[in-house]
Amino acid sequence: MENCVFSDVYSEFFPFWGALSESDRATLCRSSVLMKYPRGTNIHDGSECTGVILVRSGCLRVYMLSDEGKEITLYRLYAGEICILSASCVLNSITFDVFVDAEEESECCIVGGCAFADISAKVAEVKIFALETTVGRFSDVMWVMQQILFMSMDKRLAIFLLDESAKTGSDTVKLTHEQIAKYMGSAREVVTRMLKYFASEGIVEVSRKGIAILDKPKLRKLV
Amino acid sequence: MENCVFSDVYSEFFPFWGALSESDRATLCRSSVLMKYPRGTNIHDGSECTGVILVRSGCLRVYMLSDEGKEITLYRLYAGEICILSASCVLNSITFDVFVDAEEESECCIVGGCAFADISAKVAEVKIFALETTVGRFSDVMWVMQQILFMSMDKRLAIFLLDESAKTGSDTVKLTHEQIAKYMGSAREVVTRMLKYFASEGIVEVSRKGIAILDKPKLRKLV
Repeated sequence: MENCVFSDVYSEFFPFWGALSESDRATLCRSSVLMKYPRGTNIHDGSECTGVILVRSGCLRVYMLSDEGKEITLYRLYAGEICILSASCVLNSITFDVFVDAEEESECCIVGGCAFADISAKVAEVKIFALETTVGRFSDVMWVMQQILFMSMDKRLAIFLLDESAKTGSDTVKLTHEQIAKYMGSAREVVTRMLKYFASEGIVEVSRKGIAILDKPKLRKLV
Repeated sequence: MENCVFSDVYSEFFPFWGALSESDRATLCRSSVLMKYPRGTNIHDGSECTGVILVRSGCLRVYMLSDEGKEITLYRLYAGEICILSASCVLNSITFDVFVDAEEESECCIVGGCAFADISAKVAEVKIFALETTVGRFSDVMWVMQQILFMSMDKRLAIFLLDESAKTGSDTVKLTHEQIAKYMGSAREVVTRMLKYFASEGIVEVSRKGIAILDKPKLRKLV
């Protein structure tokens, strides 16, 4: 056990760590790897059980892929967060596939799915942790679904621009229409058309430098 | 205990029943009601913790509702199935609201949310049951979302496989998933996933040699 480089990290981020036997801890450590992914790497493509991913630094994006390669972002994971949907062998009741990319350069601990599944089958605390993490993501996905299915596009784009502006602390959103479309699960043409409409209303100004928000109150009124 | 009209039903449909103490069983029975809903009744409107619903007969429809009254059906529950999303007080990680209607005349046992939550907090088997039931519904919801987003992919892939088979005069399509994706203007991951679905339905068999069409009539029915 004293050799396990993972045990400090796991004892901090896995609430079940204290409930495990020495031998189970050793098993989880032995089946773990530390990975560094350059920005843009596909980490999990839904086809196999990649394992339980614990993000140490960076940002992972979890998404669905449509028939034309259209992506719907479900949620993002930051340092200290855990991806369990990439370990399909752990949860039998999960019958869908998601994709996971490193959105920034990211460092992750990956626990082998089989080892995690074995221990989850015998230690209730581990199983409850895996299930609770998944149920939390269910809420995220329902939120996205509401955004996509129920909200009109002008409202969604307004929310996106306000969110981006708040996140970056700038009134200029430096993303291409393509990128915005990807983040919103929409098509570039739709974003371009809607931005043109916003510009004609004096809400934004679109240039090579990005999308400058000119009239925040008006944008907020759309939300 | 001998007076509890619910205990026969619960011992059949709650896998954790055997793990409960006499007193916990009595608590669940005492906080239960048997309800008969005419077709079309709204049973749960998302605003409070209605309780855990066990369907005895009939059919419940679980759906989302937009501000403008637009509905999206998430799934249906039949006799013997359990609705846990109507007991928001049981699962803290659930932060969204769903609506539940009786789609047909339905008879249900409803366990009070507080009683269920109390016991779920102290008995791991109950908590695991509540979480697993919820995670199973997560898969249903993802399926709905995929249907909406990936609508015609199964149809398109079926047409492609039948065309290829007719063109080559063979029941085995000797193309990689990558090649098929390219021909169809889709992504490899999407083709792989849909082939996996076809395989699970017994329509094709995927191997190194290619994609063997096992059930042509079933494939044709998709078109």
